[in-house]
Amino acid sequence: MGEKSKLNIGVIGYGFMGRTHSNAFGQAPKFFDLAYQPVLKAVCGRDNDKVHSFAANWGYASFETDWRRMVERKDIDLIDIASPNDTHEEIAVAAAQAGKMVMCEKPLGRNAAEAGRMVAAVEAANVPNMVWYNYRRAPAVTLAKQLIDDGKLGKIFHYRAKFLQDWTISADLPQGGAGLWRLDAGVAGSGVTGDLLAHCVDTAIWLNGGIEKVSAITETFIKERQHVLTGKVEPVGIDDASLFLARFNNGSLATFEATRYARGHKALNTFEINGEHASIAWDLHDLHHLQYFDHRDEGKLRGWRDINVSDGDHPYVKNWWVPGTQIGYEHTFTHQVVDFVAGLSSGTPASPTFRDGLATDQVTDAVLRSAGSGQWERPGDVT
Amino acid sequence: MGEKSKLNIGVIGYGFMGRTHSNAFGQAPKFFDLAYQPVLKAVCGRDNDKVHSFAANWGYASFETDWRRMVERKDIDLIDIASPNDTHEEIAVAAAQAGKMVMCEKPLGRNAAEAGRMVAAVEAANVPNMVWYNYRRAPAVTLAKQLIDDGKLGKIFHYRAKFLQDWTISADLPQGGAGLWRLDAGVAGSGVTGDLLAHCVDTAIWLNGGIEKVSAITETFIKERQHVLTGKVEPVGIDDASLFLARFNNGSLATFEATRYARGHKALNTFEINGEHASIAWDLHDLHHLQYFDHRDEGKLRGWRDINVSDGDHPYVKNWWVPGTQIGYEHTFTHQVVDFVAGLSSGTPASPTFRDGLATDQVTDAVLRSAGSGQWERPGDVT
Amino acid sequence: MGEKSKLNIGVIGYGFMGRTHSNAFGQAPKFFDLAYQPVLKAVCGRDNDKVHSFAANWGYASFETDWRRMVERKDIDLIDIASPNDTHEEIAVAAAQAGKMVMCEKPLGRNAAEAGRMVAAVEAANVPNMVWYNYRRAPAVTLAKQLIDDGKLGKIFHYRAKFLQDWTISADLPQGGAGLWRLDAGVAGSGVTGDLLAHCVDTAIWLNGGIEKVSAITETFIKERQHVLTGKVEPVGIDDASLFLARFNNGSLATFEATRYARGHKALNTFEINGEHASIAWDLHDLHHLQYFDHRDEGKLRGWRDINVSDGDHPYVKNWWVPGTQIGYEHTFTHQVVDFVAGLSSGTPASPTFRDGLATDQVTDAVLRSAGSGQWERPGDVT
Amino acid sequence: MGEKSKLNIGVIGYGFMGRTHSNAFGQAPKFFDLAYQPVLKAVCGRDNDKVHSFAANWGYASFETDWRRMVERKDIDLIDIASPNDTHEEIAVAAAQAGKMVMCEKPLGRNAAEAGRMVAAVEAANVPNMVWYNYRRAPAVTLAKQLIDDGKLGKIFHYRAKFLQDWTISADLPQGGAGLWRLDAGVAGSGVTGDLLAHCVDTAIWLNGGIEKVSAITETFIKERQHVLTGKVEPVGIDDASLFLARFNNGSLATFEATRYARGHKALNTFEINGEHASIAWDLHDLHHLQYFDHRDEGKLRGWRDINVSDGDHPYVKNWWVPGTQIGYEHTFTHQVVDFVAGLSSGTPASPTFRDGLATDQVTDAVLRSAGSGQWERPGDVT
Repeated sequence: MGEKSKLNIGVIGYGFMGRTHSNAFGQAPKFFDLAYQPVLKAVCGRDNDKVHSFAANWGYASFETDWRRMVERKDIDLIDIASPNDTHEEIAVAAAQAGKMVMCEKPLGRNAAEAGRMVAAVEAANVPNMVWYNYRRAPAVTLAKQLIDDGKLGKIFHYRAKFLQDWTISADLPQGGAGLWRLDAGVAGSGVTGDLLAHCVDTAIWLNGGIEKVSAITETFIKERQHVLTGKVEPVGIDDASLFLARFNNGSLATFEATRYARGHKALNTFEINGEHASIAWDLHDLHHLQYFDHRDEGKLRGWRDINVSDGDHPYVKNWWVPGTQIGYEHTFTHQVVDFVAGLSSGTPASPTFRDGLATDQVTDAVLRSAGSGQWERPGDVT
Repeated sequence: MGEKSKLNIGVIGYGFMGRTHSNAFGQAPKFFDLAYQPVLKAVCGRDNDKVHSFAANWGYASFETDWRRMVERKDIDLIDIASPNDTHEEIAVAAAQAGKMVMCEKPLGRNAAEAGRMVAAVEAANVPNMVWYNYRRAPAVTLAKQLIDDGKLGKIFHYRAKFLQDWTISADLPQGGAGLWRLDAGVAGSGVTGDLLAHCVDTAIWLNGGIEKVSAITETFIKERQHVLTGKVEPVGIDDASLFLARFNNGSLATFEATRYARGHKALNTFEINGEHASIAWDLHDLHHLQYFDHRDEGKLRGWRDINVSDGDHPYVKNWWVPGTQIGYEHTFTHQVVDFVAGLSSGTPASPTFRDGLATDQVTDAVLRSAGSGQWERPGDVT
Repeated sequence: MGEKSKLNIGVIGYGFMGRTHSNAFGQAPKFFDLAYQPVLKAVCGRDNDKVHSFAANWGYASFETDWRRMVERKDIDLIDIASPNDTHEEIAVAAAQAGKMVMCEKPLGRNAAEAGRMVAAVEAANVPNMVWYNYRRAPAVTLAKQLIDDGKLGKIFHYRAKFLQDWTISADLPQGGAGLWRLDAGVAGSGVTGDLLAHCVDTAIWLNGGIEKVSAITETFIKERQHVLTGKVEPVGIDDASLFLARFNNGSLATFEATRYARGHKALNTFEINGEHASIAWDLHDLHHLQYFDHRDEGKLRGWRDINVSDGDHPYVKNWWVPGTQIGYEHTFTHQVVDFVAGLSSGTPASPTFRDGLATDQVTDAVLRSAGSGQWERPGDVT
Repeated sequence: MGEKSKLNIGVIGYGFMGRTHSNAFGQAPKFFDLAYQPVLKAVCGRDNDKVHSFAANWGYASFETDWRRMVERKDIDLIDIASPNDTHEEIAVAAAQAGKMVMCEKPLGRNAAEAGRMVAAVEAANVPNMVWYNYRRAPAVTLAKQLIDDGKLGKIFHYRAKFLQDWTISADLPQGGAGLWRLDAGVAGSGVTGDLLAHCVDTAIWLNGGIEKVSAITETFIKERQHVLTGKVEPVGIDDASLFLARFNNGSLATFEATRYARGHKALNTFEINGEHASIAWDLHDLHHLQYFDHRDEGKLRGWRDINVSDGDHPYVKNWWVPGTQIGYEHTFTHQVVDFVAGLSSGTPASPTFRDGLATDQVTDAVLRSAGSGQWERPGDVT
């Protein structure tokens, strides 16, 4: 174990995503046999005391308060971006130019233009890169991908996805500032379209291929909120809800919906796919289950199977506990680290790469265009 | 009991819907105290032997093989139309002109133009009228309506509805003929839009008010099928799947989807409504349940409540069995008879009237227009 | 249809069970092709006005107020006993001696001694006989029986059954009288043991064979209640809860539980069977579903299948509506009529016969004996 | 952070439980603000290479191959026993005598006699002690405890618990040896009674108080298996299934069942409690949910609430991620570390202490006695 090459990591951002990434880098080598040993070399945040405390808690060897310094450090191999969306492009481009591997929290850019420049940078520098669309690595979602690749579903007719939350229904909730930058359009780029719908789109493209066209509608239910930084009541620029119809390149039809106004749902991220022979469905609220219906089962015994994805022959699971014992949200990030490192050693980069992240941004851009134009829009039209 | 006024009924059609209506008229007075006693006076069908047999089985006093003769009979008060969609307008108009009450299986017309003429006829004749959108009378759906009317949900943000089936996936299934007229566009008017989506739209308007605009997409997955009547392989004119986005007049956003290509679903007719304070959801596959989430519950004890709608204080239920014992599909029709008769005696017509049925046809027309135009369409633009 | 032989029926009792039986006799021939045509010849109850009204409502040709007169009538072929438990033996014996077929609501007797005399009477008279353990005829339960008979489960290891209600928790509820005779030990024979547990035992013996021995505990949580008939507060003689362990003759182990003190459950009648190869589970609250797990499914795709028992190849179902549309509680009684009539014409009596009903009473007697003795008891020891 | 006192830990055992404990000690301080800083000082195992590797992987500062050496080390404050059941007593007694705090994997002893001596040792030494009945710390279970303590349920009528697995159904599975010592009665003490049922009993006593008496039945379905260590086919000494009825001191009645022969269930550890006012139910397979029914809810809106126990006001959860994101099996161990440390600093020892673990062993002993005697047995009779 001591002889393993080290993968020296610098994480930028110590918020919610800074924690999940730190945990993932720490847990991955304890449960999986990795070709490289991740080392938490440095974390970067603007508040000296907070970043110091964060570094101590998570076992970082050092910390920085200026991301530019971290990008310059020779002892760091990988820059991991866990800071707000408006910082992604600048940091990623600088890191790539410095020859660092780059991992970036989703969405890749605030829009496809930013994402496109990020792709250009990592591809020009030829550095490994990945976007943290972590839900691909829920074992049940990976199992879904295996079933599709195995042809279990046959021709696909329908896809439907939702990501429903309810945490912003109150008009008293302000926008902007530390924990609330997701409500500030300038920082986030968009509202639920980039925050929630982007997850659905990434999963959908992975499982069902490219999207040909979309027709969308968005809404901002609460039009004004006090801004934390300015103290003033300001117009809300983000979309609170974003819905779209789509046709995939494979001819299947789809509905997508994301909202923060679905009372009773905390993080109901779901998809369902209906194929000629079989259907599958998944739900983040019970992420260790996959629902599966196979029409080829004996007629009178057909039924939706509730697969408890915790057995040794399920993806990732044998490295954790025993059958029947569930894993949680954070493990999806850990699996992403595992696959990224496996990609480094195998030479086949793990997806989603920045280029995959760009594809999602192109769809979410088309969604927002369509919501504005009232027309069907094609993701491929503008790249 | 013997002194009750009689309501003499003539049913046209002895197919699937002829059976459900006959059963409903027979069961309603056994379980509910009705102001009028329904009498199965006559049933009408084109095949003499079959209609004879049907009449004997269900206890009809007589039968006819020509609907025009039935409409002319003086001993009949109410004409109930349970024949294919392409017969609705002609029969309903004739019945109204003959001064009969008219009940009509859904959809009211094959399109809003037909439906409009049917409305004109019953309103000109001033005869009681009703469309069999039976799912309104599932006790759980009626309970949902009560909760909304009581203001439990508050401002509505989202509505979503689906009606998923999988029975036409095989390319070997022919179109047209006795049991398969729903696959023949000439007879049915449309595919799933009029057959399934119309149910969703009727329920939606009842629960959430009028629809301002829609954006739709439809698809015919299997393009050609043998026609039962001609024996030839002919193009399929119906839509196999129909999806639309909508904005309601109350500002809420919606997704609707109907298909016969959702493997694993037999009759998954669902809706969910998200309001400021509470949400509700329902599913025809378990029609005796209503899901309810109330944000005003004590914080740490909030959860979706699975209400088993079988208690004495739930709509309709105390007239059936005991708490915990479920009723089924057919009871929704029985309840519709109960309410129609109650409307006769109270003077307040039970909904959905023909005018309500027209409103649904206007929405489904707009859906089909939008699927053709690629534009958002407004149901109110053409009436 | 007119040429069918008639089966002239006299029903005794017009309470809850009088209604379900009347409905079943009326509905069965409308939906199923029966060899004999059931005719509701007479109903019997002690209150002249009530029985008159009941007869009119359900279409009985006549009524009686003394069951002895009905048993004597030449125009009646079948006596159906739907009156309280303390009347079963006397009526059944008299009916058998009069050469009538006899159907009897469960439990057969208040104890095995009564049941034994009833068996002797019908067997001596050689008349068709049946006990209304209706839940066997829920299509999902019948499907379970088919799977077991087909050997799908393999060797059985475990059986567990529950019947949970909560309607008697209040101390204010009186005992005795019209709707409450089930709380009067003299009339009912026992509490939940004969009322609820007997259903579980009948199903268990049918599905899993005879029971070798039991260890039981019972409890009366509310010790005194006002008696409706006497007006006095009297000790409660019935058991409110009854639980037992069992070993079946096939070596499998079981838990059984019945109670009226399980807050939140209205009629949660469930069973689960675990076999070497497969397991099944059922729940009356959603009686149209069967849960099925098959270990022989492909490893990573194993899961409990939620079978929506509403397809054409499921027992009884093709005679009702269409796939995905559920039936309800009352249909289990209708199916029992169908099978009883089929047994008449085929010569193979449909179960459960009185002898089957006796077997259940022997088990419930053993349960009550064990609760008293604190010992394991064998149902076969006393017959 | 640097100033925190250290809690120097020595873990004995590097199997399944060695991993879960190591992970818990590592994760607890990262997510919770602990009064003492756990330090993984040493791990002990008999195989030098394996223990070396394990120590490196989990970040232990050192390792031992003889537990007696570890107990003697001055630099260790806490001995954590994660080795097979037959080692618990000897190690715990030695550790207590050496003045160490002691944590011990469950069950405490192979029987109450062993457990009693362990209690005597820690109480004589006056050292903090705890048993790893981790499921108490699933947030949903802790929430259940809060609701009971708050009086939400009122008088308790019923308790039912199950722990169902299916991993030993095959006759080809050997007994004994590294991963299979749970099938060796000499090492494990008993089969499912000590392994699975003990979990149910610990939770039950915590939630519902002491057990007055039990009636039990056990079974060994597969009578002989090859022993890994001897290579011979030997009789199987453990119980494969263990079921019992119980009356609690509070008068409530209960069923308990544990088995490894319930096809389709991996680790279905469940309980349900029915009280006068409310009921609760939980299931390890979806451990982040608590089912709750409150009869005091408005009548027509009563229903079982599916509480997604992931909100900030739920036990432990605010220290993890965000609402709607589930945690898993391992977190229950982490929470146990958190509470143990909190008990050290507050002076109020966290339960379950060794004395609590003894109470569970007394019940499981009574269960085994009853299975042998065929009589009701009282846990308190032998201590």
